[in-house]
Amino acid sequence: MISNTLSAENLAEAVAIATDNVRNAGGPFGALIVTADGSRFPGVNRVTANNDPTAHAEVTAIRNACAALGTFDLSGAVLYTSCEPCPMCLASALWARVSSVVYAADRHEAAAAGFDDAAFYEFFEGSPAERDALLPVQRLADNGFDRSEPFTLWSSLDTRIEY
Amino acid sequence: MISNTLSAENLAEAVAIATDNVRNAGGPFGALIVTADGSRFPGVNRVTANNDPTAHAEVTAIRNACAALGTFDLSGAVLYTSCEPCPMCLASALWARVSSVVYAADRHEAAAAGFDDAAFYEFFEGSPAERDALLPVQRLADNGFDRSEPFTLWSSLDTRIEY
Repeated sequence: MISNTLSAENLAEAVAIATDNVRNAGGPFGALIVTADGSRFPGVNRVTANNDPTAHAEVTAIRNACAALGTFDLSGAVLYTSCEPCPMCLASALWARVSSVVYAADRHEAAAAGFDDAAFYEFFEGSPAERDALLPVQRLADNGFDRSEPFTLWSSLDTRIEY
Repeated sequence: MISNTLSAENLAEAVAIATDNVRNAGGPFGALIVTADGSRFPGVNRVTANNDPTAHAEVTAIRNACAALGTFDLSGAVLYTSCEPCPMCLASALWARVSSVVYAADRHEAAAAGFDDAAFYEFFEGSPAERDALLPVQRLADNGFDRSEPFTLWSSLDTRIEY
């Protein structure tokens, strides 16, 4: 169990952050990280404002929280977001070890507003042909290089920080 | 069709970038964006070095390319990466409109080196119970707020930049 009680007030704040961001030339998305000890870190969508396709509200909130706390591990934190997270944001939350995600609007409401979240879910849930039509991903055989070299060097280092 | 011919030399460079990054206190991952006109933008894993769980090599390369080119759209670009991209990196590539992804080592080789990529693929490919065990994601009903307010304001703006 997470110690962090889910809160409609926090979700309302994420929605208010989203609305404020639209007034500030950002996309209609807002997020709020609340850590187990109650620290709060907002994030907003700055994709077009900052020319960063990865600057979704959830990713920005995770980056803000980690930078402020000096950690790459947000275990115990809840991620509140104004809209159902896309696959990039869900996987970012997994890597950040967030304990729970709570959202307000869903992927279909985002699609109705013109955003591709729903299509990108289909990349992960679709057939190989559907994936390939959206984004071909292929492996090339080693040819003039050793693909295991980075891992071999990494495993030999006593100073490596695992995560 | 992409105009950008897939190149073993570019993939070898991504692997070399990964190896160099290990020598520079980074994780064992490297990436290279090559645009349709041949511009090249490397990226390295700085998760622990920068306290940013989203700073995977592929995400960093996408951010570097977009910042340098002043765009959030990398249509026509190929993303070369030393290791099969995790779901966060794949979805980042989708949002960046990258045209193709090419990798060297695979998710199982990353798992053997201690990285969770394979487990996080299971989040997207697994059952609802498996997803919930990794990261509970839930919707809360509107309670004291209107979840559609950000989209409604967004849709009313003539100045909005769609993506």
